[in-house]
Amino acid sequence: MTHPGVRADSGSTKHRIIAAAFDALATHGYADLSIKAIGDELGQSPSLIYYHFDDKDDLLLALLDFHLAQFTAEYLDGAGADPETNLRAFVDKLLPETVSADKRTFLRVYAELRAQAAQSEAYREKFTKLDSLLVTTVSDFIEAGIEAGQFADVDVPVAAEHLVGLLLYAMQTRATTTRTASISSIRVALDSVLDDLRGEAVRPSS
Amino acid sequence: MTHPGVRADSGSTKHRIIAAAFDALATHGYADLSIKAIGDELGQSPSLIYYHFDDKDDLLLALLDFHLAQFTAEYLDGAGADPETNLRAFVDKLLPETVSADKRTFLRVYAELRAQAAQSEAYREKFTKLDSLLVTTVSDFIEAGIEAGQFADVDVPVAAEHLVGLLLYAMQTRATTTRTASISSIRVALDSVLDDLRGEAVRPSS
Repeated sequence: MTHPGVRADSGSTKHRIIAAAFDALATHGYADLSIKAIGDELGQSPSLIYYHFDDKDDLLLALLDFHLAQFTAEYLDGAGADPETNLRAFVDKLLPETVSADKRTFLRVYAELRAQAAQSEAYREKFTKLDSLLVTTVSDFIEAGIEAGQFADVDVPVAAEHLVGLLLYAMQTRATTTRTASISSIRVALDSVLDDLRGEAVRPSS
Repeated sequence: MTHPGVRADSGSTKHRIIAAAFDALATHGYADLSIKAIGDELGQSPSLIYYHFDDKDDLLLALLDFHLAQFTAEYLDGAGADPETNLRAFVDKLLPETVSADKRTFLRVYAELRAQAAQSEAYREKFTKLDSLLVTTVSDFIEAGIEAGQFADVDVPVAAEHLVGLLLYAMQTRATTTRTASISSIRVALDSVLDDLRGEAVRPSS
């Protein structure tokens, strides 16, 4: 079994349940997702899931925590020495030219999870953390780039929101529309924001 | 009864049902929304709703069509003579400095409706139309501004996706997080994209 969302091959029972919840959510959608469906995905009875989690939302909130931790491990701890390279690699990773079926599934599952934040404070808290983590990550790369002399002395919070905004818009576009042509326009816009960070051609000679 | 989403005061039964569906969706969320709950909101029996709509999704898709038509009437037919003023008014309308409780409800309902596009082709089609309409509207304003000599000869599809991307990111941020401080950063980023359209200070004298 491959998990676009959760790599838990060697994991604990809790991790295997979280991986099954991701797959069941991808198959059924949030509204039709039940603990029974997650049990079926796992090949176990619902009682095993209830032993570890209170209900469907408790489990899905744990899935979000799992991804938050995974994200930190992958992007923050794994970054290289060159700030601009790190930033461009981050953008490429979040906005690849084409998306595999697995990645598209991941984007759709996330669109559904994010929508729960419209009704639930607990989900809102997780997506506040997730978006803040994205913005902080990008801010750190930009700040390091300014210190290294790669970037001009830009307004870091604004530049970070700008980049993350275009990345999340592209992800939402892929998850909820068939506007594939717009992805390349978003990419061009993103590249222009990245180029502006270098401060080239933005300062007139006067 | 006021409807942040649907103004149907003088409307037909169909319009009153659509308005009630919006309110019931705001109260219950998509997963817990039932035709019975919509009937309760309307003070009518579910059979009246089933006379007009096949099921919950048929009704919510009609709600999206209603908003699409309303949007066209409000923005496209109502635009003034000055392209830059039209564009800036459009941006201000979609990204006001603060949002009323009604507007926030509207944003949350839309976040939930959009998430259905992750699972359903019919919803995906509507959000493809909706986003395309936003981008076309902005493109038209930019093109008119270029013709009027207000804007530089920019890449119109890229600039339009850029602006719409930041607007939808801001709306998503308001609907699904508590990151209120980030809204003003997004606004500064948006203003810089708008200013760049004028081509000032972007072309070095060389």
